Amino acid sequence: MASAKIVRPFCIEDLCNVGRNNLCMSMQKVGFHAPRDADIPRRCFFVKASGSNSKSVEVINGKKVNGIRVNGGVPYLGQRSCELTLTESSIEEPNHAYLLGRFVEERFVYRQTFVIRSYEIGPDKTATMETLMNLLQETALNHVASSGLAGNGFGATREMSLRKLIWVVTRIHVQVEKYSSWGDVIEIDTWVDAAGKNGMRRDWIIRDYKTQRIITRATSTWVIMNRETRRLSKIPDEVRDEVQPFYRNRFAIPEENTDSEKIEKLTDETAKRIRSGLAPRWSDMDANQHVNNVKYIGWILESVPTKVLEKYNLTSMTLEYRRECRQSNMLDSLTSMRNSVKHEDLECTHLLRMQADKAEIVRARSVWQAKRNHTCS
Amino acid sequence: MASAKIVRPFCIEDLCNVGRNNLCMSMQKVGFHAPRDADIPRRCFFVKASGSNSKSVEVINGKKVNGIRVNGGVPYLGQRSCELTLTESSIEEPNHAYLLGRFVEERFVYRQTFVIRSYEIGPDKTATMETLMNLLQETALNHVASSGLAGNGFGATREMSLRKLIWVVTRIHVQVEKYSSWGDVIEIDTWVDAAGKNGMRRDWIIRDYKTQRIITRATSTWVIMNRETRRLSKIPDEVRDEVQPFYRNRFAIPEENTDSEKIEKLTDETAKRIRSGLAPRWSDMDANQHVNNVKYIGWILESVPTKVLEKYNLTSMTLEYRRECRQSNMLDSLTSMRNSVKHEDLECTHLLRMQADKAEIVRARSVWQAKRNHTCS
Repeated sequence: MASAKIVRPFCIEDLCNVGRNNLCMSMQKVGFHAPRDADIPRRCFFVKASGSNSKSVEVINGKKVNGIRVNGGVPYLGQRSCELTLTESSIEEPNHAYLLGRFVEERFVYRQTFVIRSYEIGPDKTATMETLMNLLQETALNHVASSGLAGNGFGATREMSLRKLIWVVTRIHVQVEKYSSWGDVIEIDTWVDAAGKNGMRRDWIIRDYKTQRIITRATSTWVIMNRETRRLSKIPDEVRDEVQPFYRNRFAIPEENTDSEKIEKLTDETAKRIRSGLAPRWSDMDANQHVNNVKYIGWILESVPTKVLEKYNLTSMTLEYRRECRQSNMLDSLTSMRNSVKHEDLECTHLLRMQADKAEIVRARSVWQAKRNHTCS
Repeated sequence: MASAKIVRPFCIEDLCNVGRNNLCMSMQKVGFHAPRDADIPRRCFFVKASGSNSKSVEVINGKKVNGIRVNGGVPYLGQRSCELTLTESSIEEPNHAYLLGRFVEERFVYRQTFVIRSYEIGPDKTATMETLMNLLQETALNHVASSGLAGNGFGATREMSLRKLIWVVTRIHVQVEKYSSWGDVIEIDTWVDAAGKNGMRRDWIIRDYKTQRIITRATSTWVIMNRETRRLSKIPDEVRDEVQPFYRNRFAIPEENTDSEKIEKLTDETAKRIRSGLAPRWSDMDANQHVNNVKYIGWILESVPTKVLEKYNLTSMTLEYRRECRQSNMLDSLTSMRNSVKHEDLECTHLLRMQADKAEIVRARSVWQAKRNHTCS
């Protein structure tokens, strides 16, 4: 057993700043943030704070193995240096904490780092909108899991699971300034806030890790649904008590800028292009036994002319979810287009609907910028 | 500038073993293995070996910033301890090297660690076969990129790029013992060897990081094709000279066990189920402007009965690629089934073909084990 001392009021950043090594991340994960058992690496540090406002941190070595010593300072903060002394239980541990994400800004923000993989890029060799949305989802789910609130569902809290409640997204709006390439490292921040009386807002910011420039911003609205009746529900007080401590009143995108204008409902008459007979594949189903909402993007793009897909960058997308979709449903994808207020931009309206009864699944709006004139403004 | 000394003959494992921290991985990446420029983290160590058999390693600090000191030993090897002293150029650096992969076993094996993401799992909450194949592809491409051989194509070497040559896979065989779940960490090893006079074999092993048990084994055969004429080519001597130093005569699966039996060609008469009208989506296209070979799996599964998809685990899959597929092609998926030699197992034969002229794209064989009796043997 060894001691780790921080010589000024402790905050999680102190630990993160000491070399960004396994220790610190393990401390963050294991001791302070009620992690899932499954996340604890095989050989790691066990850490306990000796009091909620304590300035000292105790490092308990899970298994006694010959160790190494790490002495770290946090000079770049320009403040008093701190010291950590610890015994590592293993020197074989890679930095999975980094793969799994961590809290920053006093637990109000959850941050995860990703490397764009070869199969996550599209024909133009940059990450697709589907990839971005997948990574946003992953960060959100890990946020819930790492917060210690996770129940047995995807993103549901314990009190929600007890009541058979799940989160469903009603709206998501994504603004992309720059798409990343294969091998690029990106850093995603996410946090939540109240949205009216019975909703939750979740925002994200994606930074290019190298330049630290913000390259994507996104915001979404969530409500609670009963898993069995599939009916919407109020947020029970017990659930509100769980999530409220995490609420943070900050906007990834200024509210007036979140494309809140109503999305017109397309019809056979108003649509410029219609692709029918789109069939969800078995491989489109997710762990909730329905089509994952990210998959809708692929179908929406099926009614966008190839010329647009090839010559334009998708710079903004807004999705309004109306209805669930299961594997047996056949879909129509509808798109209409017009020149945007900003010249050179294209604005598309989309509708994804059931082929059988034309029931709406998703309404969407997308903005496209000609590739040659793309200035990443 | 600071010195790093290893007191016995240096090998890359020494560095990796000292705490698995950024330093060591950066050393491995930056100094010894001719990395892509793009891979070098913004602030990192620059490392040079002072001789190929040298016992000392010089650590050059890229940018002079207040640093931290790390003193490390490798006691678990039961040998003399070693010492590393270095100045970090930044303490903000997460361990991207781990995200990006590294060489082990004297550069003959490339190893990359992945965390299974929420959107990579299927309805049964475990990683899908598509996910596994995607990760195998990613590891293979990073292997080439990190070897310093990479040309401008996906996986092509410099000498190949000069000649407009690309690698194409002709056969892949995957054996799965256990599928991982969301959040599980897996470790993929890959290496290459000669396959006959004009082919290359690439093998993979996937380990569950926690238990270090091998949970998947795979082998594949590659040949060279001209990017423009789309005709197969011999391996030019210059290309052989590039890749040969990486060849390693070891098999992930004993040769007699790689399902080398001919895959029968299915017809309208011999197929039990046929799904027609499968259309590649825009989002199925990859950076080579054609349907990525991993996507074929999704279409193959479309003609497998839902009952099998739900009640059985896919334990083995063999794909033989016959022809490329582009976005405009409509496809048929054919499947026939029989009980396997091992009772309780199902063996399926598949064919993916053009709908228009019935030209073969992929022949495949899959083996399925009933879920209840799945013993992970």
